[in-house]
Amino acid sequence: MSHPEAVVDLLALLAYAELQAFDQMATDARLAPDLRRRAMLSEMAAAEIVNYRRLESRLATLGAEPQAAMRPFTEALADYHQQTEPKDWHEALIKAYVGDGIADDFYREVASFLDSPDRQLVLEVLHDSRYAEFAGEEIRSAIAADPKLANRLSMWARRLVGEGLSQAQRVAADHPALAMLIITAANDQGDIQGLFKRLTAAHTARMATVGLNN
Amino acid sequence: MSHPEAVVDLLALLAYAELQAFDQMATDARLAPDLRRRAMLSEMAAAEIVNYRRLESRLATLGAEPQAAMRPFTEALADYHQQTEPKDWHEALIKAYVGDGIADDFYREVASFLDSPDRQLVLEVLHDSRYAEFAGEEIRSAIAADPKLANRLSMWARRLVGEGLSQAQRVAADHPALAMLIITAANDQGDIQGLFKRLTAAHTARMATVGLNN
Repeated sequence: MSHPEAVVDLLALLAYAELQAFDQMATDARLAPDLRRRAMLSEMAAAEIVNYRRLESRLATLGAEPQAAMRPFTEALADYHQQTEPKDWHEALIKAYVGDGIADDFYREVASFLDSPDRQLVLEVLHDSRYAEFAGEEIRSAIAADPKLANRLSMWARRLVGEGLSQAQRVAADHPALAMLIITAANDQGDIQGLFKRLTAAHTARMATVGLNN
Repeated sequence: MSHPEAVVDLLALLAYAELQAFDQMATDARLAPDLRRRAMLSEMAAAEIVNYRRLESRLATLGAEPQAAMRPFTEALADYHQQTEPKDWHEALIKAYVGDGIADDFYREVASFLDSPDRQLVLEVLHDSRYAEFAGEEIRSAIAADPKLANRLSMWARRLVGEGLSQAQRVAADHPALAMLIITAANDQGDIQGLFKRLTAAHTARMATVGLNN
């Protein structure tokens, strides 16, 4: 991907997503039933800020003003979080588990479109796997203890994905150059349908792992 | 300080204070007028979690159950934050600036009462000085731009200190062994009045640095 403006857009989108994820998870940590779990979600939130800083500093190196670069993406991400405010601890965990999982899969796909050092940077801001293990284990054991939960939480996960897709479409519509570049890059490597299929398959597998239906 | 139970109490108090500071600063970051400042306060919040983890892991090494050890301190700290909810960005900054400043001075005093490795640990969880510089510079330039602010913000800082002292007295009253140990250790090195005088003098100097009256 040799279009510097689109790279700036992409890194700015990822950066603002991290900042917003920090905000959301830090708030959601209050839903934790005990201090150990609260600390764990707080730590997951804190990790987003470390990644945010790396992306922000890369934006500056590329000559972009980070705030200005992020601004076009703030509304879609704020709306996503506002539409998917978790009401309890399990909803918060699933939001982190599903959201981080899809985000990481997307980052890995996107990294392959980029040249160094951006490729390396995007691979390095992936989430620590022990966070997914923690969230997954919490969800699994909650469903084991109360199988009725599976239905409600599966619906919640579908709502998260639906709202995420709808905001992603909005971002794509507002940033045709960015959207076109991702589509072109994806088609060079196969096709954009393949990318969506891989993201969907990985998401379905992640859901099944913790006892949820897609 | 050779009383392991009091050391556990002390580390648990510091640990929970970090966790609660994370929560408060992460929320306060929403008051920031722009993304750069929001990211900075978010990063200050995230740093608290790193320190929290170190204290929590030391508690576990000492054979304490971290959650149980922190529980006796949760109410006083929650009440402090509830009574001092910042209403705008400047109040949030002053809370971080004044609170981190007093906390660090207190940690430094307390470290001298402890044996290694706890002494070293407490010195290492001090706040990064660039955060105080950021907050101080923000407050200074806000007052320079609008001198009327100084009065309102000075009153706010006094309220923070007043509320902090009142919760500290409550903690001391509920934990006489911890309070006695701090008093005894302080008296070994001079006296407890000296400790309060040093904390007060450093606080007054910090206030003056940014244009506030104590």
